[in-house]
Amino acid sequence: MIKPRLYRGMRDLNPEEAQIQEGVLDVVKSIFLKYGFIPLKTPAIEYLDILAGKYGPESENLFYTLSYKDGRTLALRYDLTVPLARFIGMNQHQLPRIYKRYQIQNVWRAERAQPQKGRFREFLQCDVDTVGTTSLVADAEILALSIECLSKLGFQNYVIKLNHRKLLRGLLNSVGIDAQGELTVCRILDKLDKIGRAGVQEELTGSGLNQKQTESIFSFFDLSGSNKDKIDYLKEELNTDLVNLGLRELKEVFELLTSFGIPSDKVIFDTSLARGLDYYTGLIFETVLPDHPQIGSLTGGGRYDDLIGMFSNREIPAVGTTIGVDRIITALNAVSHNPFQKAQGSVLVTALDSQFQKVSIQLAASLRKHGISVNLFPESEGIRFQLSYANKMGYRFVILIGEEEVRNMKFTLKNMTTGSQQAYSTSELIELFRKESGLK
Amino acid sequence: MIKPRLYRGMRDLNPEEAQIQEGVLDVVKSIFLKYGFIPLKTPAIEYLDILAGKYGPESENLFYTLSYKDGRTLALRYDLTVPLARFIGMNQHQLPRIYKRYQIQNVWRAERAQPQKGRFREFLQCDVDTVGTTSLVADAEILALSIECLSKLGFQNYVIKLNHRKLLRGLLNSVGIDAQGELTVCRILDKLDKIGRAGVQEELTGSGLNQKQTESIFSFFDLSGSNKDKIDYLKEELNTDLVNLGLRELKEVFELLTSFGIPSDKVIFDTSLARGLDYYTGLIFETVLPDHPQIGSLTGGGRYDDLIGMFSNREIPAVGTTIGVDRIITALNAVSHNPFQKAQGSVLVTALDSQFQKVSIQLAASLRKHGISVNLFPESEGIRFQLSYANKMGYRFVILIGEEEVRNMKFTLKNMTTGSQQAYSTSELIELFRKESGLK
Repeated sequence: MIKPRLYRGMRDLNPEEAQIQEGVLDVVKSIFLKYGFIPLKTPAIEYLDILAGKYGPESENLFYTLSYKDGRTLALRYDLTVPLARFIGMNQHQLPRIYKRYQIQNVWRAERAQPQKGRFREFLQCDVDTVGTTSLVADAEILALSIECLSKLGFQNYVIKLNHRKLLRGLLNSVGIDAQGELTVCRILDKLDKIGRAGVQEELTGSGLNQKQTESIFSFFDLSGSNKDKIDYLKEELNTDLVNLGLRELKEVFELLTSFGIPSDKVIFDTSLARGLDYYTGLIFETVLPDHPQIGSLTGGGRYDDLIGMFSNREIPAVGTTIGVDRIITALNAVSHNPFQKAQGSVLVTALDSQFQKVSIQLAASLRKHGISVNLFPESEGIRFQLSYANKMGYRFVILIGEEEVRNMKFTLKNMTTGSQQAYSTSELIELFRKESGLK
Repeated sequence: MIKPRLYRGMRDLNPEEAQIQEGVLDVVKSIFLKYGFIPLKTPAIEYLDILAGKYGPESENLFYTLSYKDGRTLALRYDLTVPLARFIGMNQHQLPRIYKRYQIQNVWRAERAQPQKGRFREFLQCDVDTVGTTSLVADAEILALSIECLSKLGFQNYVIKLNHRKLLRGLLNSVGIDAQGELTVCRILDKLDKIGRAGVQEELTGSGLNQKQTESIFSFFDLSGSNKDKIDYLKEELNTDLVNLGLRELKEVFELLTSFGIPSDKVIFDTSLARGLDYYTGLIFETVLPDHPQIGSLTGGGRYDDLIGMFSNREIPAVGTTIGVDRIITALNAVSHNPFQKAQGSVLVTALDSQFQKVSIQLAASLRKHGISVNLFPESEGIRFQLSYANKMGYRFVILIGEEEVRNMKFTLKNMTTGSQQAYSTSELIELFRKESGLK
């Protein structure tokens, strides 16, 4: 026998985990559709030159490449952004100029080292993007949608952090960091939540910044006051074209968010927010739970106007966010009100002997016909085993069908929590469980 | 610029196709849950020796294998059955003895030749299985579920064809075909719908059967009368242990299906049904649309008691079916009542000038707050472009917001089908579209 095992960095979602993930996805998908976003699905396997184009020639070890006898070099997708750009490049004449799509599919990352516990080489990516417009209404709508996702998932104490890549560039320019150094600094700043200010300071020094430069950068992070206070201060203090452009757009987004009905206390202008990815060009944002900083951002994204046109021979502006499904599940567990962690249905129908099995099938079929989720125990021997199965699976009710039940056509309902038992007719059970499942 | 292109055999699901697929999956998932099946998700990448175990040593060219620097041989999963067996092998002490799971994930098949149009090297597999019991109640429940899937998807004229592998073996034995030849013959018989009787006859002769053997086989396929007539005839005619066992189980399943409320005219005992896969051991079944034979089976499966235990060192019986999502979508299009082919939401909110944009955002936010799907046009210039966008995207209504609308806070609703226009307040629009979307 071959020993069953999994490649490191791969995981199964067991029944409970899969149900929680499905529950989260159902919520976010319904919100995406409500906001006018439509689904896209692309294949897992693409040509490597297409996938690697964005990441440069040394990027090939990021990918799982495929050996296949026809000699072409293929790889598994690394993200959903490059496939979106490829899809747009191939379909630009059919697609509307403004294209709002969501995409929920797995991605694969060939991490060099053995991944640590909790880090995976295959994971679900959930992206939502508005392509083809520079209007900040699109940016604000993505933020409104992010907040509605968190709110509908049951989170209360969350905030959205906002910054602007052009403003950040202006700040870095003002302390003498040029376009070359900017990306390195952004990548280091992105670790602020993870390694703290001392860690960031050390890495910045390591990357060649002098003490005055790091101090100046941190002084911009220590602004106090309202979002408006911070904008006014920076405008006054720096007053360069780049800084003013960033501030103007931030201000406009704050106003648009008010129109979208987002309470202003949920929105924080955070000058230290950097987002590591080099392709952002404008607004950048993340949502976090201030009470659970160790979880990191639950959603995050920004505007990236230079990437999506890479296969279309023209610039195509875009803004979007990732919904971090794994992080959200971690957070739902942390705030311990996980609404999706429920048993698989609530009723198990049993039969105490094979001669009663047809009645138990008929009862299960009747309940299902009325939309009630029912598990039917397929064997009839051993009521003790059936009850222990019900316990193990977390069923709250068991319907027992034996001689007396069949004679009277009244079935014993056992409440597995209290142990109480009572007999009901089929129509009484239908009514009871339709109420129980919120069906009426 | 890199030319955007797809590897042959791969495909994108464009917005419409993805929405139809999502719609079908929503229906089948809700039925799986109602029948007490719970989801499982396994990784795409597994060790090749695990995936290939079932298929034998010459099977490696079935798989997409992965080159990865740590030297292990990995591959993309070929089906969902082997990963289920591997999952059970790794988790047998945590799982209940009777385990009902569904799994909806992609699989990859490295077909040797360039795939023909409409054949894909990556496709969605949707499987539902009851593991751990030999009770025929489980077989009948899988059939009841298959029929409910087709019925809830809107099909009316469908039938389920049933046969039994042991009965088929008994038939073949009776004409002198031994265990060796049986699988070859089953694979040929499985093509009956595709290549017709003449084609099957030719291939059977090519595989070494003589004329008398092929004639005898076809004589078993030409039985007329009710399911019961066929059972009685075969019992009388052949009367071997293998045949009698198959007939007894078929008879019991017919009775159980009646208990499940399945009308007997939907159930056809078809002695010619073979199912190509070699791992079936008992009941085998398919659902088809008699009016659309060229589409092939929409669902298909059977009992396979020797496979799932392959990583557990013991026999674990199982019965299950595949729901053919691609075939179902083809069939929905063929019967031309595709219920999922609907526009992406029905309302587009516009603004005729940037000064009215905040009002249009507020209106969109209000409608969404009441659960109504609304797309918001993010730009404000060019009402003609906005209307042509609405047409292209299939919106049935456009809400126009200009000077008069903002002054009166009554918004012009344009019906894109009739061209008629009328002004409504926000609360009137909420009421109108909640009715329209079936929300009240």
